[in-house]
Amino acid sequence: MTINVALLGFGTVGQGVYETVQTHQHELSQKIGEEIRIVSILIKSQDKDRRIEENVQVTTSFADIFKQNRIDIVIEAIVGCDPTYNYVKEVLSQAIPVVTANKELMAKKGSHLRKVARENKTTIAFEASVAGGIPIIRVINECLQINRIEKVEAILNGTSNYILSSMRENGLSFKTALADAQKLGYAEADPANDILGWDAFYKTMILSDLIYGSQPDWEQAYRKGIDNVTEKEIKAAENEGKKVKLIATLSKAGGRVVHAEVKPVKIGPDHPLYSVEGVDNAVSIQTDLAENLVFQGPGAGALPTASSILQDVIKAALRNRSVDSKVAQVL
Amino acid sequence: MTINVALLGFGTVGQGVYETVQTHQHELSQKIGEEIRIVSILIKSQDKDRRIEENVQVTTSFADIFKQNRIDIVIEAIVGCDPTYNYVKEVLSQAIPVVTANKELMAKKGSHLRKVARENKTTIAFEASVAGGIPIIRVINECLQINRIEKVEAILNGTSNYILSSMRENGLSFKTALADAQKLGYAEADPANDILGWDAFYKTMILSDLIYGSQPDWEQAYRKGIDNVTEKEIKAAENEGKKVKLIATLSKAGGRVVHAEVKPVKIGPDHPLYSVEGVDNAVSIQTDLAENLVFQGPGAGALPTASSILQDVIKAALRNRSVDSKVAQVL
Repeated sequence: MTINVALLGFGTVGQGVYETVQTHQHELSQKIGEEIRIVSILIKSQDKDRRIEENVQVTTSFADIFKQNRIDIVIEAIVGCDPTYNYVKEVLSQAIPVVTANKELMAKKGSHLRKVARENKTTIAFEASVAGGIPIIRVINECLQINRIEKVEAILNGTSNYILSSMRENGLSFKTALADAQKLGYAEADPANDILGWDAFYKTMILSDLIYGSQPDWEQAYRKGIDNVTEKEIKAAENEGKKVKLIATLSKAGGRVVHAEVKPVKIGPDHPLYSVEGVDNAVSIQTDLAENLVFQGPGAGALPTASSILQDVIKAALRNRSVDSKVAQVL
Repeated sequence: MTINVALLGFGTVGQGVYETVQTHQHELSQKIGEEIRIVSILIKSQDKDRRIEENVQVTTSFADIFKQNRIDIVIEAIVGCDPTYNYVKEVLSQAIPVVTANKELMAKKGSHLRKVARENKTTIAFEASVAGGIPIIRVINECLQINRIEKVEAILNGTSNYILSSMRENGLSFKTALADAQKLGYAEADPANDILGWDAFYKTMILSDLIYGSQPDWEQAYRKGIDNVTEKEIKAAENEGKKVKLIATLSKAGGRVVHAEVKPVKIGPDHPLYSVEGVDNAVSIQTDLAENLVFQGPGAGALPTASSILQDVIKAALRNRSVDSKVAQVL
């Protein structure tokens, strides 16, 4: 038996997953006890030349994927909600587990998709949607279960952090630093999602769902990007021994309402995120028992994201097998 | 039904666990689906006055613990190998899961005790034995399964890190900084285990077992503590923009032999552990996919240690239940 996987999307993340399944087949099959095979890949257009083995179905038709092979797990590596929301809903209603890296989808539709998954006795996993290669979802869900999480502060957008680091270290204007980041591949051609704070905001909402079981009203949650940060502000902060960072904050202190905001903040050397530079992400979690924990690592990139996605795939595969053995209730 | 727990040892860690079971019963029973009850506590002598509820068995006799109640899980919170090794072996041979915070025991006897656990179809869990409240064992075991771990660098002894921070920040000699640490409760009356590097060394050996499946020959593994670090060396490092830290290193680069060492090292601002100050621990893991991940948090203390111990207790309780349902094979 093999675990048959369908891959939706073949951009940076999709290609990273495809390659890693080949290079790390030994580690995967050792953990799962069966071989993982990517049997179908959904692409946008047939124009491009791709390095995909011949026996893999490559198609532009979502429906075709389920006609040719039995599919055990679907990895969703597209971006945005359209058409991914419908795809993911359709897969879950077939009781097939989904692993996704899609932060916008999970922020906007995560709660509903988890419900669809439960109704169909399957799962949707999304480790890769927050903080790239840092296993923050698993840590919160499985390693801090007794702790009351009082506050989270995080650097969740590597592009913004890179630009701010670069403005400070090289005395650049926002425009120049952005252009440099684009040249180096750290910012996209259309950087709006990153520099306006939306990417960090989506991830914050996913953490809010996870930690507090709900999200604040999006209208009430403050979101400000780094697009108006000036050289002067960064210089002024530096003169106080501080750095400007795009910080996401999440708390439920003193009430039932979740408080969330994403904005540029001046932080000093005593702040747990002060030393986080370049494209790294970091999450600082204030708990009642384990005190303050900080998790730092690459916030994006093909291989770190593949690491998180394939860890979720292992879990889904092991759960599948246990469902087959009619023991789903214990997992 | 309740989960009956026996607690061996009622020092700082044992008391922290006892209190946390009371303050966090809601979180515990919500995760487990059953109430956790500490039914027996093994103490050294009856002399001390202790705040333990009346219905809890408090005894100096290990054997008595198993006479009065059914015991589902044993938490071992003593130190050293004698008599803990015999206790733990005895508990495991009764097929009762053990949760331990004992680094010396796991470094010296971990491999054998895991074997005894397997033979008796039970488990020994030891999250609290390395890096206190940081869930580093679980992260390595369950979150980085596909990654090849190339190198680990870590600050694993909070006492040493505190003393080195304090020598640098306050210009103190080793002796004065140690005395201060002792006054503040950050160093024990007999500090040998910490300042000679043994504590960090034991933890490094546990990580070696975990990551590489074996330990280097202890004679080959270099261990040097902080007891000979001078004010002058720290000053000289500072003049180069560096800090002296007690760093544990573990790698298997370029061969089959695990390389491990614990020693004071000068590190600069680019090093992932440069900003770790005071009693914090931190583990930096270099992987092939997730790149470099750093996990930082309190390395000791009653409540952070209780957090790790009780997370292991939850896992053991859930596994117990699944064994009862005869589905042990899937976990």
